[in-house]
Amino acid sequence: MQAEIITIGDEILIGQIVDSNSAFISKELNKIGVTVYQITSVQDNRDHILEALQMAGKRSSVVIVTGGLGPTKDDVTKHTLCDFFKDELVQNEEVLSHIEELFKKYISTPISDLNRKQAMVPSKATILHNAYGTAPGLWMKNGGTAFVSLPGVPYEMKHLMQDQVLPKIMSDFERPHIVHKTILTYGLGESAIANKIEDWEDALPKFIKFAYLPNLGRVRLRLSAKGTDKQALISAIEAEVEKLYPLIGDIIYGTEEDGSIEHQVAELLTQKKMTLATAESFTGGKIAERLTAIPGASNYFKGSVVSYATETKIKLLEVPTNLVEKHSVVSAEVAVAMAENAKNILNTDFAIATTGNAGPTKGDSDAEVGTVFIAVSTPQRTFAEQFVMGNQRERIVKKSVNKTFELLWKEILNF
Amino acid sequence: MQAEIITIGDEILIGQIVDSNSAFISKELNKIGVTVYQITSVQDNRDHILEALQMAGKRSSVVIVTGGLGPTKDDVTKHTLCDFFKDELVQNEEVLSHIEELFKKYISTPISDLNRKQAMVPSKATILHNAYGTAPGLWMKNGGTAFVSLPGVPYEMKHLMQDQVLPKIMSDFERPHIVHKTILTYGLGESAIANKIEDWEDALPKFIKFAYLPNLGRVRLRLSAKGTDKQALISAIEAEVEKLYPLIGDIIYGTEEDGSIEHQVAELLTQKKMTLATAESFTGGKIAERLTAIPGASNYFKGSVVSYATETKIKLLEVPTNLVEKHSVVSAEVAVAMAENAKNILNTDFAIATTGNAGPTKGDSDAEVGTVFIAVSTPQRTFAEQFVMGNQRERIVKKSVNKTFELLWKEILNF
Repeated sequence: MQAEIITIGDEILIGQIVDSNSAFISKELNKIGVTVYQITSVQDNRDHILEALQMAGKRSSVVIVTGGLGPTKDDVTKHTLCDFFKDELVQNEEVLSHIEELFKKYISTPISDLNRKQAMVPSKATILHNAYGTAPGLWMKNGGTAFVSLPGVPYEMKHLMQDQVLPKIMSDFERPHIVHKTILTYGLGESAIANKIEDWEDALPKFIKFAYLPNLGRVRLRLSAKGTDKQALISAIEAEVEKLYPLIGDIIYGTEEDGSIEHQVAELLTQKKMTLATAESFTGGKIAERLTAIPGASNYFKGSVVSYATETKIKLLEVPTNLVEKHSVVSAEVAVAMAENAKNILNTDFAIATTGNAGPTKGDSDAEVGTVFIAVSTPQRTFAEQFVMGNQRERIVKKSVNKTFELLWKEILNF
Repeated sequence: MQAEIITIGDEILIGQIVDSNSAFISKELNKIGVTVYQITSVQDNRDHILEALQMAGKRSSVVIVTGGLGPTKDDVTKHTLCDFFKDELVQNEEVLSHIEELFKKYISTPISDLNRKQAMVPSKATILHNAYGTAPGLWMKNGGTAFVSLPGVPYEMKHLMQDQVLPKIMSDFERPHIVHKTILTYGLGESAIANKIEDWEDALPKFIKFAYLPNLGRVRLRLSAKGTDKQALISAIEAEVEKLYPLIGDIIYGTEEDGSIEHQVAELLTQKKMTLATAESFTGGKIAERLTAIPGASNYFKGSVVSYATETKIKLLEVPTNLVEKHSVVSAEVAVAMAENAKNILNTDFAIATTGNAGPTKGDSDAEVGTVFIAVSTPQRTFAEQFVMGNQRERIVKKSVNKTFELLWKEILNF
């Protein structure tokens, strides 16, 4: 059983927006055992959409179309679906009263004819109620293939997928199971890992697919299996993962099911009822931001001092002026002082600190672009490590944030 | 002149990664007058890739293929290109010595046969030197169509596009000019704007396309024109934009060329040689992070106190305990104290502060999820405004960060 996704919108094809809808839809379909065969992004153009619908319909049992709806897109998707199904638009009273209700409740401007037009739907379509917006989802069947039209607004699309489309696919189609497991590693490159696990990889059973996903100094290893017996698939994958540990256990820090490394830091601190503060210089609040993006951060995270200017390090983090003068602001000594003082001032169990030069020019120190120091303070000790992170601002910050979480995670494990 | 993009990788089709490469490539192609007709994401599978190559080649003059390279992908793209061009892989000595050099310089593990395999390239291909990685770019011509294969690692792909592919397209193909201008608005919804500018939109010349791009409480308005005389296109678009101001000038805060609102805040502060501090509660460092992502932030940004816990607001931002007790930590009074104190402690011209409840549960106050206060402190006054931002954690934070920049930007304009 396979599906396809068609995304409609010139904004994708001119690169104005990144198509994150497709990744979401693919992930959700995968979870219920539906393989996505292809994703096609096409222009806001009737003929182009028609061609894409025809081709996808020949290959796949479910075709999910996002975008091309809404008053200002001329509802190109709806009109094209009418052409494709030799259908016509009719007014749907339920959709109309839902639109009127939304306007009364949430929107200060008066309802217009453009808004009312959204209640016009193909007569053969099953309506998928969009609780969070004015454009309804549409479900239309052609032979064995279901064509589903969803709004392109990510928030509305996600709710429609979860509340309506996935349950309907599960009840209408027979599906195999797909099981994925992704192992998170750090510190070793793709081909170095490949060398170490070559024999293991060659001996994998045929129904298990294996892939390397490298990104910014980390490689994720993904095992995927498809079949009818979900429990057997899970067991088979688990058995293979177990065999990986003797080979590369030293570089594995978890699985994707455990969540990203900041999720694991969050979980460990919550479990241990311990607390964290951060003192960030060149990372500019990104560590705090990543932590607070996780619900429940207030259980362990007390706060951060983003001490971008040297004077802020001195004033708020009480870093001694002579320490800065003696060692420069980008130094192990200053990183240690930042972490230790953040821990003491905010009265936490752990603290981390970053200081470095992310470029493009040298800052308050003579440190080369890419030179960074990361300090970790634990209930027992404080230490700093130096890294050289290349010469691209964005990458320097991202790699340093990742490295900080790795160092912190290893320390928390000991308490 | 049109192009297509084919992205290869199961990781995209199972939703494990978002395809941001295509947006980058599309944007760059657009800048040099090349329209992207379609983006197709296909599996790591020879037949599927072959089919995509064939179809794209029939429609477009340039087909850019990313991914499916590298030792652990079995170099599926390279092998498929050989099939497509009836070609074979041969060892390229220059690529081989580049790989050996990279390993000597940067990589601690010894070079393996897998790495050396990356020097095997189709004999008919023009090699595009990949200064930042081991997999070279390939340029192969079939009739009038160029097929370009690039690694999927964003960093390497971007360099290859900018340094090699774009210059080669510009020298090898005749292209029209494409000019875009995107107007940034806030505070009004898509259809409300559509109502206000209906007559203007209807009167637009045929060669100018117009689109609405709504996202999180803001609508971007895009004008695009294509033709042979670049200066005439720019003038025509400018003339239409001028006519927009009398209609909706009150909701326009700039154009995309001016950059995002934080870029505009950064630029204004740098011009005026004024400084900023931030005090962030539920936004958790996201405002600081957005500012410091812009090179040159150290010119105006002194730092932030991410006072996630109430005690951190009291300790570092010197918010009086009785103020918190009297008004609750989520209140206009506390927001004002945070902003004012951040400004005084860090000795800046401006400061902003956020306090609120982003959920999922109520925090240190009784405030409903979604209730937020944003304060701005200027050289002349400090004020706070209350907002209700819905009930989704991520959206509450993002909308609040946007709103903070809007409030701050309007104030800075007055100085």
